[in-house]
Amino acid sequence: MNRRMIVYLLGRVLFIEGALMLLPTLCALIYRERCGLWFVAVGALCCLIGLAVSRREPADPVFYLKEGCIVTALSWLLISIFGALPFVLSGAIPSFTDALFETVSGFTTTGASILPAVEPLPRCMLFWRSFTHWVGGMGVLVFLLAIMPIHGGGSHFNLMRAESPGPSVGKLVPKVLSTARILYYIYIVLTAINVALLFIGGMPLFDALTTAFGTAGTGGFGIKNDSLASYGIHLQWITGIFMMLFGINFNAYFLVLYDSPKKAFKMEEVRAYLAVILVSTVLITLNILPQVSDVFPALTQAFFQVSSIITTTGFSTVDFNAWPSFSKAILVVLVFCGACAGSTGGGIKVSRLLLLAKASLNEFRAYLHPRSVRTIKLDGRAVERETLHSVYVFCAVYFFVFCGSTLLVLLEGVDLVTGFTAVAATINNIGPGLNAVGPAANYGQLTILTKYVLIFDMLAGRLELFPLLLLLHPSLLKELLRPGASASGKGGESYAGR
Amino acid sequence: MNRRMIVYLLGRVLFIEGALMLLPTLCALIYRERCGLWFVAVGALCCLIGLAVSRREPADPVFYLKEGCIVTALSWLLISIFGALPFVLSGAIPSFTDALFETVSGFTTTGASILPAVEPLPRCMLFWRSFTHWVGGMGVLVFLLAIMPIHGGGSHFNLMRAESPGPSVGKLVPKVLSTARILYYIYIVLTAINVALLFIGGMPLFDALTTAFGTAGTGGFGIKNDSLASYGIHLQWITGIFMMLFGINFNAYFLVLYDSPKKAFKMEEVRAYLAVILVSTVLITLNILPQVSDVFPALTQAFFQVSSIITTTGFSTVDFNAWPSFSKAILVVLVFCGACAGSTGGGIKVSRLLLLAKASLNEFRAYLHPRSVRTIKLDGRAVERETLHSVYVFCAVYFFVFCGSTLLVLLEGVDLVTGFTAVAATINNIGPGLNAVGPAANYGQLTILTKYVLIFDMLAGRLELFPLLLLLHPSLLKELLRPGASASGKGGESYAGR
Repeated sequence: MNRRMIVYLLGRVLFIEGALMLLPTLCALIYRERCGLWFVAVGALCCLIGLAVSRREPADPVFYLKEGCIVTALSWLLISIFGALPFVLSGAIPSFTDALFETVSGFTTTGASILPAVEPLPRCMLFWRSFTHWVGGMGVLVFLLAIMPIHGGGSHFNLMRAESPGPSVGKLVPKVLSTARILYYIYIVLTAINVALLFIGGMPLFDALTTAFGTAGTGGFGIKNDSLASYGIHLQWITGIFMMLFGINFNAYFLVLYDSPKKAFKMEEVRAYLAVILVSTVLITLNILPQVSDVFPALTQAFFQVSSIITTTGFSTVDFNAWPSFSKAILVVLVFCGACAGSTGGGIKVSRLLLLAKASLNEFRAYLHPRSVRTIKLDGRAVERETLHSVYVFCAVYFFVFCGSTLLVLLEGVDLVTGFTAVAATINNIGPGLNAVGPAANYGQLTILTKYVLIFDMLAGRLELFPLLLLLHPSLLKELLRPGASASGKGGESYAGR
Repeated sequence: MNRRMIVYLLGRVLFIEGALMLLPTLCALIYRERCGLWFVAVGALCCLIGLAVSRREPADPVFYLKEGCIVTALSWLLISIFGALPFVLSGAIPSFTDALFETVSGFTTTGASILPAVEPLPRCMLFWRSFTHWVGGMGVLVFLLAIMPIHGGGSHFNLMRAESPGPSVGKLVPKVLSTARILYYIYIVLTAINVALLFIGGMPLFDALTTAFGTAGTGGFGIKNDSLASYGIHLQWITGIFMMLFGINFNAYFLVLYDSPKKAFKMEEVRAYLAVILVSTVLITLNILPQVSDVFPALTQAFFQVSSIITTTGFSTVDFNAWPSFSKAILVVLVFCGACAGSTGGGIKVSRLLLLAKASLNEFRAYLHPRSVRTIKLDGRAVERETLHSVYVFCAVYFFVFCGSTLLVLLEGVDLVTGFTAVAATINNIGPGLNAVGPAANYGQLTILTKYVLIFDMLAGRLELFPLLLLLHPSLLKELLRPGASASGKGGESYAGR
């Protein structure tokens, strides 16, 4: 295992986090908040430690999927721990567990909060809270790849593969470095348009920035106690549409920019995603119509909430816990569905469910015509057995982690719906659940054990299970902690070997 | 499609059902109940129709998996419809929908009841209700195979394959005919021992018989309003242990009888099943201890309920709806887990989950050692890719059917837990759910639409999805209903071709 490279990369990640803390510092300067000094202090600490351990690039930069997973999991743990420090030190969130919960919830773009009220928080803290969504949305290692070249064949790809959501990583262009840059380019431009539209629509710049961060990262932290309910209908529609846009596979935007828009719309995952949004919105609108005065407000509420939940953002304009069971059940299904692969959203992902649905339909054909050759196609190309297998196994592991977490959370004695939806809302990186963790409530009253279980679920969900679970694997842990192991990739099998 | 053979087999099945109605008739004679005449009437009708359509064995008896699935699905529909008639005609259950629900619930060994109180029912009706569990437990077509030879290669196997639960059908001995006989032999002997023990333990013979039918078929219909709560502790332990025994893969009993008991205990599925029961019982005992006075009553309640739920029987001795959330959540997990393949129990089956767990652990190895060859073994033998694939697809289809049913049920406006557990309790053939369909409540107050959705779920669960879903496949339906199709297997691909 290439431990020097792991430490080197972790140093770089920490340095970036330190540098990013300049933004909340700037915010504190503008609003003259003294607690902004803590961002200076923690930011400086991050940069110093980061520089200290990553002065020299290791002689052997080659590493494999295993190391890619470890770097990813440890990076996310590290930035969460250091990202939580300003909250604790400033006293904004005195408990470390709570601050860590809030920061992990931020970086993983979950948006689950332990705060009963967010409005009393200083502006710079609110800014940092929302900004973590934006950083976590596209991924901190993708950011690293976008700005820093690493030498060594396959290393880039193994990093990207460990952090990116979805059943398979599509390199947009042959070089991973360029792919990462293009992704961030699209991400920044879309976010900028979102901010501009919100600002033009009458939102103050600070609100527009933080809301856009939450939208772009599909996070869901708001800066008001009622999330987005108090903003005008047009601002809710802008946010609803942008949430939907950030849930689309970024490959589609690449096709729009560098190829043909037609091809983008022909992507089956994008079509399925839009179809699910359309059908869910119509069904919920009809279902809540008796509760709401008129069609347009019902449609607005339904579309906003569908878009917010399927993209796993978690903004809310109404307390959907008060909706009829049928509408709530649709939302629960959307919670698991999640957004497109290669977007900033969480969940199981539309493409995985699409493949499962195709495999299921295929099985019927097998019963009817046992001898026929059966391949599953996506976007006109045959899906490899290996990809399909990884989808199945992902769902199986997901199921096991889900059941285990729910049982642990229910040990606390909360009701079934609260326990079930708390885990569903965190492992899928949504934010609000139902009942005691519903949109009108928060996660603050849970016990410490439960909070750590949910922190684990948020990270496991964002990193799509394997990187984080691998970190718990005894043999890997032993290898990682063994003193004096060789720096080079002992037992290093290249990715191509899979 | 060999339609003549389909009609022939359906006729035989109907004839058998008619003959089986002699037993409730006998029961009515003993207790001098006049409503027993309806069993004579319906039984005679079944026999007549059955004989009329199956006088001559078709010249071409060969058929394939497709026909096997159709025969299975149609058989179960047919026996449920005719089995419901005595309830309707006698006025015991006046509504046809309710009577069909009750009968499907009986044959599929679900045990979900629409009756608010069972004690007012005549004895012969109670007997028939419990007896349907016993018939459905091992399967009506397996019964047909056990008593009647059908000529034609592979036909037996395709019938057995369509009706038997589990990822793959193990022929115990080379001939399917003998396998079916051995299965029923073990089934009858175990049931007889169960009846004898209950009777010796002090239960009246009628109660012992009906309780044993419900236990053997893992059905769960009781003959008392409080299920088994009013019987003595020792009778509860006997029933608890026998439920557990009927949830074991019957291959294990075959090994005990014809090979070595050691081999039976070495079956990984059996071990996993027993381990799950042990762990769940201990956890629930500890969890409910503060509610219950002492350790032994808590252990009794916990073991009985765990055994009842994992085997998908559904008997209850307490209202577990009043248990703490953690215990309820364990029961919910057991609901989906289900019993062993090749037993009379329902659910996803322990062997499927075992294979999923092994595949998941294997994936970690793939991350750590990408080049290693990875095969999954069960009972020392490598599991074929095809088997593993069918497990994955089963789970996917299961998931889709589950979500669709739950949404339909929730349209009625019941609360989330009621809707979710009503579907879970029927598709897994358990019986009682939680909240409004909990052990202290019943399914009678649901709407007609919901009842038909749940009837579909019970059949889909018992037949393991595909046979019933195939019946809804447009191309198959067209082929089945096309006038004047050739009787022989047009497009008939043999099973071996898969």
